[in-house]
Amino acid sequence: MSHNALSAPNPFSTRPADKAALENGSLFAPKFDEQGLIAAITTDAATGEVLMFAYMNAQALALTIETSQAHYWSRSRNELWHKGATSGQVQHVQDIRTDCDQDAILLKVTVEGNGASCHVGYNSCFYRSIPLGQKAEGATLAPPAEARVYDPADVYGKKD
Amino acid sequence: MSHNALSAPNPFSTRPADKAALENGSLFAPKFDEQGLIAAITTDAATGEVLMFAYMNAQALALTIETSQAHYWSRSRNELWHKGATSGQVQHVQDIRTDCDQDAILLKVTVEGNGASCHVGYNSCFYRSIPLGQKAEGATLAPPAEARVYDPADVYGKKD
Repeated sequence: MSHNALSAPNPFSTRPADKAALENGSLFAPKFDEQGLIAAITTDAATGEVLMFAYMNAQALALTIETSQAHYWSRSRNELWHKGATSGQVQHVQDIRTDCDQDAILLKVTVEGNGASCHVGYNSCFYRSIPLGQKAEGATLAPPAEARVYDPADVYGKKD
Repeated sequence: MSHNALSAPNPFSTRPADKAALENGSLFAPKFDEQGLIAAITTDAATGEVLMFAYMNAQALALTIETSQAHYWSRSRNELWHKGATSGQVQHVQDIRTDCDQDAILLKVTVEGNGASCHVGYNSCFYRSIPLGQKAEGATLAPPAEARVYDPADVYGKKD
């Protein structure tokens, strides 16, 4: 298993200098940052809820397009991450999109297993709001509005 | 106007070493990367549609929380970006969230002006799908499924 996001070959097209071609053309030329990563937002295909935010390297993006199962690059483990390989929370991609300047990816997925996407036990990683109108200094989070949908210990073992 | 995302002071709390405190506590301690930026996903508060993806520096995040209007850091212009200042597409934040490890921000907004969020003229920046099942090499984009909702020349002038 590679431990460098840049070590796998990048099969995608070279980026054209022409901004209009990127915004209006049919050429898919995703922009990876200097670490070889592109931002990926994952939403529930049925409800539209944002489930998680992660990064992909070129290999993860290629595998996602080719297999219709979400793959990411784990920055904490420094390795290719087939979401659900451990947890059973495999994400089946219904639609994959890119944005105007092609430096971000949006996935619409249905989730296998217990149907959740967050390792803390919630359906979505975005389970806490930041109350608006407070001063940034000392800002606090509101308690989660939703309950956990599973116990992480049941999925990842007692270590986590 | 500052031209370095790191030059404004960061008023937020220092990150605790304890992962459980970040995931389960009420302390808001957002993680900015080495360039001083945190990822921000913006969705339509009514429909849940993902409108855009951008970055915030500490000042942009603080202003967003304090004013309930979305502020970002423009990486292309290297400056604080009050969304809508030019286009009239001011984003009024209804809910702002962070994720489990507090290294991403989710905004749910209502948009002023013509109601769109993409400078190319679409409601959402994610107006093109990447057809699934194709090989990554030479991958192409599908034509936009939605029509433009405004002409950028009307908003930004003829220069784009």
